[in-house]
Amino acid sequence: MSTEFDLIARYFDRPAPPGYLGVGDDCALIPLTPGHRLATSTDLLIQGRHFFPDMDPRALGHKALAVNLSDLAAMGARPLACLLGLSVPSVDHAWLEAFAGGFHALAQRAGCPLVGGDTTRSEGGIAISVTVMGEVPPGDALRRSAARAGDDIWLTGTLGAPDVALRLLQGRLPPDERLLAGTRRRLEWPEPPLAFAAALAGIAHAALDISDGLVQDLGHILKASACGAELDYAELPVDEALAEAGLADELIRDAVLAGGDVYQLCFTAAPAERARILDLAGHMAQRVSRVGRILAAPGLRLRHGDRAVALPAQGGFDHFS
Amino acid sequence: MSTEFDLIARYFDRPAPPGYLGVGDDCALIPLTPGHRLATSTDLLIQGRHFFPDMDPRALGHKALAVNLSDLAAMGARPLACLLGLSVPSVDHAWLEAFAGGFHALAQRAGCPLVGGDTTRSEGGIAISVTVMGEVPPGDALRRSAARAGDDIWLTGTLGAPDVALRLLQGRLPPDERLLAGTRRRLEWPEPPLAFAAALAGIAHAALDISDGLVQDLGHILKASACGAELDYAELPVDEALAEAGLADELIRDAVLAGGDVYQLCFTAAPAERARILDLAGHMAQRVSRVGRILAAPGLRLRHGDRAVALPAQGGFDHFS
Repeated sequence: MSTEFDLIARYFDRPAPPGYLGVGDDCALIPLTPGHRLATSTDLLIQGRHFFPDMDPRALGHKALAVNLSDLAAMGARPLACLLGLSVPSVDHAWLEAFAGGFHALAQRAGCPLVGGDTTRSEGGIAISVTVMGEVPPGDALRRSAARAGDDIWLTGTLGAPDVALRLLQGRLPPDERLLAGTRRRLEWPEPPLAFAAALAGIAHAALDISDGLVQDLGHILKASACGAELDYAELPVDEALAEAGLADELIRDAVLAGGDVYQLCFTAAPAERARILDLAGHMAQRVSRVGRILAAPGLRLRHGDRAVALPAQGGFDHFS
Repeated sequence: MSTEFDLIARYFDRPAPPGYLGVGDDCALIPLTPGHRLATSTDLLIQGRHFFPDMDPRALGHKALAVNLSDLAAMGARPLACLLGLSVPSVDHAWLEAFAGGFHALAQRAGCPLVGGDTTRSEGGIAISVTVMGEVPPGDALRRSAARAGDDIWLTGTLGAPDVALRLLQGRLPPDERLLAGTRRRLEWPEPPLAFAAALAGIAHAALDISDGLVQDLGHILKASACGAELDYAELPVDEALAEAGLADELIRDAVLAGGDVYQLCFTAAPAERARILDLAGHMAQRVSRVGRILAAPGLRLRHGDRAVALPAQGGFDHFS
């Protein structure tokens, strides 16, 4: 029995739900609801590129799973199970325990049990691979290609805080303890709106999660759906921590329009669904904002009330002009 | 659109089968046969630990998928789809093209299309994460815990060649071009018996794939099934390349009993199934060997004809004595 196997058994094995076969065999076995389709996605996170070497391991365990659950949410899929690949330079029990704790706490809350994995020693830094599996009725899946001219564009949560926290941690903004305290949680402990997203399946048309920035990610919907869009800057949900910190307007605008690591949803739906969406959001205590609409003509336009606003240079706008 | 996304689109995107949604959305969507259970497994391969930095990228692409397909085979599951996470220090187009070529050739042959992935730049070496998904009727899955006293123990393929190739490449054996030529393919281009394994589902009892060595891996079955076993060394399928090379008996025995990287099946089945298994193997041109039997009493015993043989010191036997 190898060390690799022991790490999984020691830190990551939990009793599997009824009908499942979990950690310990060649494969995990997972039941699907009849008539549903399997939805699946994988991410590979590399130390130094996706997270700082000294990141709190509990937050890292949470975030490694959260960014993958965010992909299920963006499809309107209900989580079923996850797999973990973990490569570490040495066996640091305190680190592993905290990482597993953060990972499992979210897995349990999301109904997404870890059913298998592979741990190994690396020569270099830490590498984390997470695969999530969920299910969705095929007709209800929220595909990027499903936006229609006339749709409203909606967002969950707020924008801008993760980007500002990242700039502070990287020294690209002057130190500001209070601003860091107000934004860091959004960077390190993202909370994808899983239950709300599953409820949107069959109501919304297109959806995706904002990982690279609103403008760039919305661009993926526009490209896949062969349409354009108009956003109203005044309606964008700027995170309160940014608004209160007295930051320059331009910095806020960049963080809101082009800042990544948000892991909230951008989705489109027919105007006829407005009341139903607001009702659902109210019942689930889910913050939502209606921020624009889908147009037949290609291109992305930004206005602030009646005034046209230039889009930030970064953020992938080139692809959609 | 990030560089990461471009690598997937450029090298790894292929048309998805009917009913699938492949690369390009937040998740892939995969249909399951009604009444089947999803079988899934993941492996994380790290340069320097699991493969040499100069390994032929086409072989590496093949092997990264093969070792995962081997887990599906060991469950008796039919492949449905796979996901790839790939982290590389730089974008080397020739390397990526060859890696993707080796990966896709096996994916196509195995009926296991790549439906999604994540590529990223690493600071260190190459990291490869592969997740496979398959399906199996739940009652037919070949679990490690399903061996019964009186079962025959069977192997597919041959033993020992990958271990000897690895020793030659690592300089732990004197250079021998002919022996390397005869063994290297088994190390770098493993061919898990997928179709035969899926046909065994419902016939065989327990199964697993030999990745860490026959003695250690059979030990997992014995532990999970709470039983013992007796192996007949004379029946073990020693690879022809070893037998012809005039290697010391002890070296051959170590390679056969404790050598890893085999990715062939060890399975157990009732003696009443002998004719059916041999018939199936004959029809599928699958080499099989009946090498021992499962005992009620714990422990693993090795004999050579009528003579008891000591087990190699390594190979995890400690756990089952």
